[in-house]
Amino acid sequence: MKYQNIPQKSASPLADQQHLNLLQQDICLPAVILKHSALLHNLQWMQNFADTSGVLLAPHGKTSMTPWLFQQQLAAGAWGITVATSYQAQVAVQAGGRRLILANQLVGKANMAVIAALLASGNEIYVCIDNIDNASALSDFFSAENLCLPVLIELGVPGGRCGCRTNQQAVELAQQLATLPGLSLAGIEFYEGVIKSTDTARTVRQFVQQAAALAKALFRQQLLQYPRALISGAGSVWYDIVAAELKKATLPDTMQIVLRPGCYISHDLGIYQQAQQQVLARSNTACRLDGNLQNALELAAYVQSLPEPGLAVLGFGKRDAAFDAGLPQAIAIYRNGQLLSDKLSQCETSKVMDQHAFWRYDNTVQPQVGDIVLLGTSHPCLTFDKWRSLWLADDNYNLLQSLETCF
Amino acid sequence: MKYQNIPQKSASPLADQQHLNLLQQDICLPAVILKHSALLHNLQWMQNFADTSGVLLAPHGKTSMTPWLFQQQLAAGAWGITVATSYQAQVAVQAGGRRLILANQLVGKANMAVIAALLASGNEIYVCIDNIDNASALSDFFSAENLCLPVLIELGVPGGRCGCRTNQQAVELAQQLATLPGLSLAGIEFYEGVIKSTDTARTVRQFVQQAAALAKALFRQQLLQYPRALISGAGSVWYDIVAAELKKATLPDTMQIVLRPGCYISHDLGIYQQAQQQVLARSNTACRLDGNLQNALELAAYVQSLPEPGLAVLGFGKRDAAFDAGLPQAIAIYRNGQLLSDKLSQCETSKVMDQHAFWRYDNTVQPQVGDIVLLGTSHPCLTFDKWRSLWLADDNYNLLQSLETCF
Repeated sequence: MKYQNIPQKSASPLADQQHLNLLQQDICLPAVILKHSALLHNLQWMQNFADTSGVLLAPHGKTSMTPWLFQQQLAAGAWGITVATSYQAQVAVQAGGRRLILANQLVGKANMAVIAALLASGNEIYVCIDNIDNASALSDFFSAENLCLPVLIELGVPGGRCGCRTNQQAVELAQQLATLPGLSLAGIEFYEGVIKSTDTARTVRQFVQQAAALAKALFRQQLLQYPRALISGAGSVWYDIVAAELKKATLPDTMQIVLRPGCYISHDLGIYQQAQQQVLARSNTACRLDGNLQNALELAAYVQSLPEPGLAVLGFGKRDAAFDAGLPQAIAIYRNGQLLSDKLSQCETSKVMDQHAFWRYDNTVQPQVGDIVLLGTSHPCLTFDKWRSLWLADDNYNLLQSLETCF
Repeated sequence: MKYQNIPQKSASPLADQQHLNLLQQDICLPAVILKHSALLHNLQWMQNFADTSGVLLAPHGKTSMTPWLFQQQLAAGAWGITVATSYQAQVAVQAGGRRLILANQLVGKANMAVIAALLASGNEIYVCIDNIDNASALSDFFSAENLCLPVLIELGVPGGRCGCRTNQQAVELAQQLATLPGLSLAGIEFYEGVIKSTDTARTVRQFVQQAAALAKALFRQQLLQYPRALISGAGSVWYDIVAAELKKATLPDTMQIVLRPGCYISHDLGIYQQAQQQVLARSNTACRLDGNLQNALELAAYVQSLPEPGLAVLGFGKRDAAFDAGLPQAIAIYRNGQLLSDKLSQCETSKVMDQHAFWRYDNTVQPQVGDIVLLGTSHPCLTFDKWRSLWLADDNYNLLQSLETCF
């Protein structure tokens, strides 16, 4: 047995072993695995949804920040990659992305310098804007570098996050942008995921209609200075409504519609599973596709201690999985490679600490220290970012490849 | 201006610039900085506390997982480093730690293999145990490798985390351990930080007394098989009580008392600041030391959008700082390198999303997009783990060094 010299959170110390299997205790736990079959299915499902809807896909890379996944998304037909920061833009370009939406404002000299360098290398990068001071600073910076930065005006909602609050504000900003030499207005960006109302679906529809009206107004007033203008919205919750409303809006022919869902890649067994059930209840397009999104991400941890009847302490914690939208919940328990139970819905992860979780089990299962528990999670973004590498696994938990993340 | 080829979340694209300053927008934000002066003070303060109390220090490395900090802690006089997982043990050894407490159960073949390799290389590693099945598995594994693993029996509290619930259970486990060839009982470990009661300080005192009584009982019964036995407790909240009660207990001369606080290294402006105020209210030893722990960790982010009166969107989120024990709160705002205000206690970070934060400001400050906000945080463990590198800074925000983390 040879000790691997470079430590990694979920590595295997069995460096001379070719065939690693999670259930055989071959790797250090806790670990996160991505199921290859479910990933491939999800990649194809969302690309099919976009193709069938007649829209383009720029999956949000911030979810996984995993270059190998970016490459799969591009190979499956994605138009580009969406990112949230200049750092993420660098990672996406290094993974092979040549067309990026920075779905955020670009602020600060060092952040601007990163984007300028990517732009100067021939990449196509769209940056969001909602403020004239920011626009002036960007124009000064990019024109000093002899560059022209394509920007998207962000439209927001009252009480929401970034973005102009009214179409009038957005048109005024567009008129100001036209005077700035370092910027070129390329379209509209919005994010409907922050909307909460008594009838959220309806409010989302109205907001998308408002964005479409803004795009048409900017087009009519010849304020869109970029050859092929964009309109881009949609996270993983309302993408069906965004696609449908933007198609209905009869936008100018030269305008491209770009959706930016991120969480579909791994999906989850929590808030995004619930959201997707609503998508299927609403969207004929989604229903007609093959199957549905599948959970591809599982957390594996040992039963570490059995200190009291009905309580197991599992060897994972806040360091290893998202805990902001429901705690990871067990879906199966294995002993010596054999399934003990996958009927665990009466058991509950009741609490997480930094490195431990409390698992309350009922009398249908008799865990022992050393059993492996597989858990589904809620909110994949905040599970991905706990790991420098993830394992790609087949359906029998054979480990196919270690995937590097770049958070 | 040269673009750095290896992306890093808070890197500087100004690779040819020797002198970097946070306030001059020289690095990508968000970023986390550690203030050198405060770090050095905290290192010395806690080591002085341990020295004055006549106890040893094995700072919990899981807080920072920053090898440079481990090295400073060892250089300041720490007896060893505490870790929570086999992976963390590897990192601590690579940083120069030769004496480790794995303050957790060691479960699973790959995890055991990692510790076996470290032990075989001559490191001193103590592992916690609370279960005979786990003990047997460990003994089988380590004796097959011709190794003997020093173990500490973990004592826990009812409703708490891991650990035997009574001294009787612990003594019985110790008797069983004596028959296992791969293990050597080296003492007692406990973690009082999980205790919650109507008079928690009193319950903590009683629990420490119980642990001391257990140590004496094991000693009397000659169940401690290790040349220099240990008793180890204390996180960053009750370390004064643990030290005081264990000293009062008149343990055998050969027994070493080891404290394991972690968060003191950076301290915070949240739950650990509050806890430390209680330490000073309780402990004469702490009061007599030079000064007090200081917050060394600051998050820096840009004002990114000003979408509504009184609302700024800051460019950081759940990806960048702990949010489980209170949100990061602004302590200062700078414009073009100049302090605008450090009287921001009426302003409030009211919400965080993955990559954004909502900052509600009052009319004492008029932020502009591009202003830099410095924030204090609560619960340093979950801020450290968001970063692959942190910046060491002087009090004027000159950046001295980039420090790698190993999460």
